[in-house]
Order: sequence, then C-alpha cells, then structure tokens
Amino acid sequence: MADKVLIYSRFPRTMMAPFAERFDLLDTGGRPAREVFSAEELGGIRAMLTAGGTPLGADTMDLFPKLGAIVCYGTGYDGVDLKAAAARNIAVGHSPGANAASVADIAMTLMLATTRRILVADQYVRSGDWASSKQSPMMRPQAGMPGRSIGVYGMGEIGRKIAARCAAFESEVGYFSRTKHDLPYQYFPTLEALADWCSVLMIAVRAGAETQHVVNADILKRLGADGYVVNISRGSVIDENALVTALSDKTIAGAGLDVYETEPHAPDALTALPNVVFAPHIGGHTLESHVAMQNCVIANLDAYFADKPLPYSVRES
Amino acid sequence: MADKVLIYSRFPRTMMAPFAERFDLLDTGGRPAREVFSAEELGGIRAMLTAGGTPLGADTMDLFPKLGAIVCYGTGYDGVDLKAAAARNIAVGHSPGANAASVADIAMTLMLATTRRILVADQYVRSGDWASSKQSPMMRPQAGMPGRSIGVYGMGEIGRKIAARCAAFESEVGYFSRTKHDLPYQYFPTLEALADWCSVLMIAVRAGAETQHVVNADILKRLGADGYVVNISRGSVIDENALVTALSDKTIAGAGLDVYETEPHAPDALTALPNVVFAPHIGGHTLESHVAMQNCVIANLDAYFADKPLPYSVRES
Repeated sequence: MADKVLIYSRFPRTMMAPFAERFDLLDTGGRPAREVFSAEELGGIRAMLTAGGTPLGADTMDLFPKLGAIVCYGTGYDGVDLKAAAARNIAVGHSPGANAASVADIAMTLMLATTRRILVADQYVRSGDWASSKQSPMMRPQAGMPGRSIGVYGMGEIGRKIAARCAAFESEVGYFSRTKHDLPYQYFPTLEALADWCSVLMIAVRAGAETQHVVNADILKRLGADGYVVNISRGSVIDENALVTALSDKTIAGAGLDVYETEPHAPDALTALPNVVFAPHIGGHTLESHVAMQNCVIANLDAYFADKPLPYSVRES
Repeated sequence: MADKVLIYSRFPRTMMAPFAERFDLLDTGGRPAREVFSAEELGGIRAMLTAGGTPLGADTMDLFPKLGAIVCYGTGYDGVDLKAAAARNIAVGHSPGANAASVADIAMTLMLATTRRILVADQYVRSGDWASSKQSPMMRPQAGMPGRSIGVYGMGEIGRKIAARCAAFESEVGYFSRTKHDLPYQYFPTLEALADWCSVLMIAVRAGAETQHVVNADILKRLGADGYVVNISRGSVIDENALVTALSDKTIAGAGLDVYETEPHAPDALTALPNVVFAPHIGGHTLESHVAMQNCVIANLDAYFADKPLPYSVRES
C-alpha cells in the first residue's frame, strides 16, 4: 500500500501528478484538512507536502500526531515554523537551488522589461500609435545595461546567478549579504549603502522574520528617481505600501515584481500603476525547474518513508 | 559660418540637437528635400545625415551635385546604394558597434519576454485573474534558458554580444554566418541546419539584398512548434507574411520583434497575435547608445568637412 502524503497548500493538480504515481495523496486544495478529509482518512498521516510560503505553525503540526516530515515544494520554507517542527522532531525538506536559474531568469526578464519599457513598447506598436507618429513620453530613451550599477540583495544560489547574468550584460554588480563572499563583485556592508550606489535593486534574499519590510521607504528613496526595484524573493521583504507610494510619486522610476505580500492578491493601487511589470509568482515556473523540484520532493519523501535522513533537508544558517 | 547638413530621414528633433550646435541643419522631417527647402537653400549641400534603413539611391544623390558624404545614424546602412555612392565619389559613414550592446539587450529582452510570456503574466495579475484562480493556458510552464539551444544568425558585434549573454543564461549557443569564427559556440554551415537545431532563432545578420526574406516559411517550419524567432536586425530579413502564417497556425510558438518590413507600420494581422512581443525599433534606443552614435556622426562630419577620410566609414566585406 502506498504511503499517505497530505497536500497542505493549493497546487495545480498537474503539478502533483508525478507524486500521485508513488504516494497516496490526500489533496486539501489549500483548505483546512479536517474540512476535506475524515479523521479516519487523516489518521496516520506521517508526511505532508507544502509550498514554502504557506503558513504552517505548531497548531497545524499538532493536528497530526504521527507527522514526521514536512516537505516544501521549491526553495523557500519561510512559512514553516522551524522551531516548532524541531521541537516535535519533524524533519523539514525543500528543493535547494532546483529553481535558482529559473528564478534568476525571471529577475532578469523583469529588470529588462521594466527598464526597457517593454509593456509600453508593445502597446505603442499594437495600438497604431507608432505608425501614426504619436508622441509617447514613456518611450524616451532610458539608460541601458552597460555600465549600469546593479545591486543584488542576497548572495545565495539565485543571487549568484543574477550577478553572473548582469555581468554578461556589461553592468557593474554590487551586493549586500550578511557575509562577504569570495566573488568578483563589489561588497557593500549595508543595504543602505547598496541602495545609495545602485540603480536597480534585485531582491534575492531568503525571506524570514529578519527581512520583513527591510526594503522600506528609506531604501526606496536611496534608489532615487532613476532607480528600479525587482523582487523575486518574497513579498514580505518589501513594505508594499511604501512601494506603492514611491512608484506613484516617482520617488523611484519603476519596479518588476514576481511576489507580493498577500498572494495571489496584488493591491489595486499597485496594479493600476503603469511603471511596473507584474508576474504571478512564476519565478520557478519552467519545465526543467519543476522537474528538478519534483525530484527533490520525491527523494525527500522516499528517504523519509525508508527511515533515512532527508537528502534535501532545511538547515538554518 | 557653420557647414550645412541635410537631415534626410525623419528623426525626433531632440536626437538632432547635438548636431544643431555644430552644423547648420536643414531638416526635411523625412519629406522630399525639394518640397521643404528652396533650390537656393539646398545649393551647396555637401553632407547628409540619414537613418541606415531609409532608401537613398542614385536619383537622390544626383539632386545634390556637391554631395560628398552620407552619414548614417546607427550601425545599418542597408538603405544606401553603396555602388551609386562609390560611382559618385560619395563617402558613406555609420556608427559601427556604437549601439551593439543596446541592440543585443533588446534581443535578450524580447526573447525573455516572449518565452516567459511576460505580457500575458502582467495582464494575468492586473486583471485579477490570478487572485480569482482563473485558469490560463498561456501561463503553463515553459522551457527556461538553461540548456535551451539559441541560434544566432549573424556573428558581428551584435551577434557576439547576444551569444555572450545567452551563454551566461546557461543556454547552448550555435550560430550561422558566412564564415566560421574562432568562438566557443557551435558553428552551423547553413541557416537551415541552425534552424533545425535551435529553439530560438536570434536574427542579428546585416541586412541587404542577399538576406531579403531569408527567414521564410521553410526556416520557420524548421524551428518547430516550440520554436521562437527574435528579430532585431531589419524587417526585410523575415518574410513577414510567412511569419504571420507560422504564428497564427502554431507552426512556431512565438516571436519577439523590434523591426518590420515597412516601418513604422506593423501589419494588423501581426499585431493582433497574442504570442508576439512588439517593440517600435528601439534596439539602439538607450541614452549611452545615442551618445555613442552621436559621437560617431560628429566625428564623421567633422572629418569630412576638414577634408579628411571618415573615421567610421562603411566598408563592404
């Protein structure tokens, strides 16, 4: 008999198909498990699959006395209360680096689309305004990539891939992270100093309590009127209200966003702005990234049910 | 008295401002010179400034018996009849490489925006469809950049910069050009072979009679249903009708276009398609690219009026 796995977050069914072949999935569709399944069905649940950003605290863990493994689909695990899990001897796994290239690429896509005004450009052609020589202030020449100062906040696998791509665009790359790395990019000891220096701030830091609203009104002001912010990490890192204000009053020039404070909702005041490019949290959303993340999930679950340590275990640094 | 320079193509006045400081500009706004200026005003015209794509043949040259220099703003000079110019001892100048990074960057922007479906993604968030969990077939995961085969057609300065950028995205790069270069990318001896191999065809070839409609229905079919074409060179390189058909019947997956056969017009059948990202020929349209192109124009005109050879002269290979 296949081992039971509770699907805790809301995932598209197609994403779960590879797991359904190996495990007996109890898919909550993101609703409370006890509303969807009987106590008898939930009895004996030893493992659950979740999205790293979905809140998963001690209360939930206590609903499943035999729970021994929480496996996150993707790199993030910020929704999981790691202390509560450790106190209950529950292993927490994720998919480290499996989506790093895919996420770095959406960061580049958002930066280029924003700085080169690709939404405006596309509409300018489609509307016929170009053909009729209509003036468009948004189509004025902008600074390009060569020589542009790109600030990368966070130098994990995603941050490194962003930095390498920006270097190929002949940009100057600087970064801030808790520790200085042996990398050919300029290190800034504070986020403030990085924001003062750079024209595009790429947020690639791991989300958590200590990064909550770290990109606030002050940091945005330091980017300046020609500055851009790109966020592919978690919505919680930016103070979203401060961002709306900074974009509305031209404190900064624009933004590219793949993540939001309360997904899947982006505030109306934000989505009404013309100087932002939006994506619906599709950073890790490529075919090869999904395969790599699925492989990590299966490896974690297989190991757990074979009473072995998780091969892709979350280690707090 | 400042030397006279005829502005032959239609340029935004702001782009001409740096030249107005040094020369006496006769700006036609793209209209026939004799409709705009009197014969007396046009008398003694020795130099003209043009956009490389604007047709400029023997007939026009013969209107200006003292014409000795045609200076193209930008890299291209495909509109200028070089044989007719040579026969009349008219020097032809351009801005080689001045906009190469800027154009390569718009190629990358269009490729990423097209393959990652950024227009659809932005609309999916703005419309509220994401918040209401509405299904979107266009938002299904796509292949990403790592391991993707990118075919670069043309290995001049722009092609090289595209290739270097794609390599940083962990893609495989192949190319076709008339000659094999000492470069770390796979060489294909024909465009057909490159199209068979690659999933994205990046058109960076210099336009001219020999490249007219070279990217035709056959080449597009070789790209296949997962294939994309990106054109930042000249619209004439693609058979635009064949492209509309290939995009409409899903022979290929999508396209990113900065150039068109009859600019500033893009056919309605093309602009109605959802699987294309359009830009209004803004490849070279960055601040630093304009400065670099302006510097080439000024250097060419200054040299010509000082009876010296053009420093940025067109050399046919």
